[in-house]
Amino acid sequence: MKDMNPIKEITSRVKADSFKMADLSLETRNKALKEIAKKLLEHEDEIIEANLKDLEKAEKDELPLPLIKRLKFDKDKIEDCINGIENLIGLEDPLFRTLLKRELDEGLILHKITCPIGVIGVIFESRPDALVQIATLCLKSGNCAVLKGGSEATNTNRILFEIIHKAGISSGIPDGFLTLMENRADIDVLIKCDEDIDLLIPRGSNAFVQYLMENSKIPVMGHADGVCHIYVDEQCDIDKAMRIISDSKTQYVAACNTLETLLVHQAVAHELLAKLQTTLTEKGVILKGTPDVQSIIACEPADSLDWETEYLDLILSIKIVNSLEEAITHINRYGSHHTDSIITENPKACEQFMLQVDSAGVYHNCSTRFADGFRYGFGAEVGISTGKLHARGPVGLDGLVTYKYKLYGKGHIVDDYASGKKQFNFKDF
Amino acid sequence: MKDMNPIKEITSRVKADSFKMADLSLETRNKALKEIAKKLLEHEDEIIEANLKDLEKAEKDELPLPLIKRLKFDKDKIEDCINGIENLIGLEDPLFRTLLKRELDEGLILHKITCPIGVIGVIFESRPDALVQIATLCLKSGNCAVLKGGSEATNTNRILFEIIHKAGISSGIPDGFLTLMENRADIDVLIKCDEDIDLLIPRGSNAFVQYLMENSKIPVMGHADGVCHIYVDEQCDIDKAMRIISDSKTQYVAACNTLETLLVHQAVAHELLAKLQTTLTEKGVILKGTPDVQSIIACEPADSLDWETEYLDLILSIKIVNSLEEAITHINRYGSHHTDSIITENPKACEQFMLQVDSAGVYHNCSTRFADGFRYGFGAEVGISTGKLHARGPVGLDGLVTYKYKLYGKGHIVDDYASGKKQFNFKDF
Repeated sequence: MKDMNPIKEITSRVKADSFKMADLSLETRNKALKEIAKKLLEHEDEIIEANLKDLEKAEKDELPLPLIKRLKFDKDKIEDCINGIENLIGLEDPLFRTLLKRELDEGLILHKITCPIGVIGVIFESRPDALVQIATLCLKSGNCAVLKGGSEATNTNRILFEIIHKAGISSGIPDGFLTLMENRADIDVLIKCDEDIDLLIPRGSNAFVQYLMENSKIPVMGHADGVCHIYVDEQCDIDKAMRIISDSKTQYVAACNTLETLLVHQAVAHELLAKLQTTLTEKGVILKGTPDVQSIIACEPADSLDWETEYLDLILSIKIVNSLEEAITHINRYGSHHTDSIITENPKACEQFMLQVDSAGVYHNCSTRFADGFRYGFGAEVGISTGKLHARGPVGLDGLVTYKYKLYGKGHIVDDYASGKKQFNFKDF
Repeated sequence: MKDMNPIKEITSRVKADSFKMADLSLETRNKALKEIAKKLLEHEDEIIEANLKDLEKAEKDELPLPLIKRLKFDKDKIEDCINGIENLIGLEDPLFRTLLKRELDEGLILHKITCPIGVIGVIFESRPDALVQIATLCLKSGNCAVLKGGSEATNTNRILFEIIHKAGISSGIPDGFLTLMENRADIDVLIKCDEDIDLLIPRGSNAFVQYLMENSKIPVMGHADGVCHIYVDEQCDIDKAMRIISDSKTQYVAACNTLETLLVHQAVAHELLAKLQTTLTEKGVILKGTPDVQSIIACEPADSLDWETEYLDLILSIKIVNSLEEAITHINRYGSHHTDSIITENPKACEQFMLQVDSAGVYHNCSTRFADGFRYGFGAEVGISTGKLHARGPVGLDGLVTYKYKLYGKGHIVDDYASGKKQFNFKDF
């Protein structure tokens, strides 16, 4: 162990503790969560004080305003975090759930049971509430979390970590359940610890997610981009389309489930675009369109770069298409497989869209902004995944567990079956 | 498209066809499977002839005997393949299954539905039956398959591909459902096509699996190694232990679920090892042990390299441990998270082992050789995964599907909920 990198040494110890985490009863985990909520409230003033230090430094360093806003962690934010923990305590246990129970033969019983993933590495930006949320989600699901927060939140993250860690271990949770890394350089060591870290959850930019995928063998769960579409079909209710487009684009412009590209069937283009121009321009949205869009309404030009862009801003790119098939092809080619919606009164067109659009969320006659764990009723959200394996779309606590097969025998051997002496006799319970 | 790499051009076309695959009814897919089985039987003589060419070349090139044995594709093997397809036709549809149906509010209905993953790249070694099996599993689950087989099976693979591809498209399956790549160099291009290929399934050596994980952003499903353990606890039935150890080690020595390391509690070491020496030596097994094992029975020395080795041979490494905890720590540290079994009559020790051993399969009083999709009653096996995400352990057809969320509304927008005008009212069906 002497020559081991100090980060690797830490992750090895965390890994060893993760096996003990798989043993913890729901009662123990919930008791620890209750203690964490209690201690956060008790230390409220110190947390706010630490946060003020970070805020002062951020202002001195002239960090961008939206970042400073996300960094702020006041009484209200602490209360939100505590409410979040109380809600989490009330959620059903994601562990020890039976997914399958099957008798293979007399006395030979197979169980497929949910269990923790193990050690989860989470790398997040400025928001200190992310630390509380991730630490408690991992604890509820029996996982160890290794966290690396943004350097601008150093003081806030440190005190939050200390409070949560102390409350956890005082409630009987193994020491390694929560680890905080503070140096940017640690990330590059961390992502090479593929023997110890089972999953990486980045909460950062698209470029950062890509960087992790290229430089780590550890599976990465998250979303790179959110380029969401609405396709307005030939047979549609224009007023319904207007309401949904407006909500999808303007209800909260900085979210990944916000509309970025509108595809309009040529049969309804004139009517829709004219109305759209009035409504969206009033809300401050800048419209960009292909030449045929520009021949109907005055707007900026759009090209193929626009089709790939997540604006996260009051900008909407518009393209006119000649068919449902053209819309589906465009979405599958340029989209980010996040959430895409069709506005149509034609059930056949609806079904073709729902089947052929290759996205985590395919919607009919509703806003793309519904793509969210809380709006899906998951009670907690780990993030939104645009990957197709393990978890897709908004990810609840379920995304933090895996399963194992438990097989209980009474001395059963395979040779009895291979030789024909015994036969399998599958019976599900 | 002019300057595109020819492989990339192919995968782009396959990707486009994969969206049409998501539309295919079970009837169409099963009809195509039936046609494939029929055509394989009709062309039996040509297949055997092509295989003879490969076999002749393999003998001329002096390839190892086990490889030549796996390469052989005769009347019996073709019959096995056809039986496999008929069995596959009878299996339940893995697609269009409802995993969740929830009313979020009046008229706003969320469905979580299984769907194909998309395009699956499979790289396999000499066995031509693997081509038939993979092609038909992917078709049943609505996926496109891009295959690269071993060069020693070139002639056999080519004719099998031609027959299956022709039978598929004549039954209405999109052209891109099956693609065969024939050059070793194509693999390196293929694994960089992360926009088109959704999943890689390697059927090769551990080193090859590691190579893919290091050089591709595409998720990899498979198992690297199978270092399986049996731990014989203090309170055990020695005869039961003997039967299970013997079966786990010798029933089929070249499989990934074969026993490689035996851990014995010191309290039963003398009795067990003495019996073991007689029984296993009779079966030709070479025993290796730590010095304390060697003080009980004559055997070769074992060191930490042995703990990490998958022998795939008649060799068994043995270690004496002082406690259940020591056994669990050893397995989690040196094992491959494949399948591990405890032999005990103590239910508490059993449960601790089942919870804390971090493997896809944790077994009690039965042979590790049960780790197999057919023995679990899955009807078809895609492979065995030692990864923890998406699919773990023996993987059936379920491992080849993902899910999407379909949300059906009637003009629903998020602002109504954010403003408090409406409330979510979750109701599961």
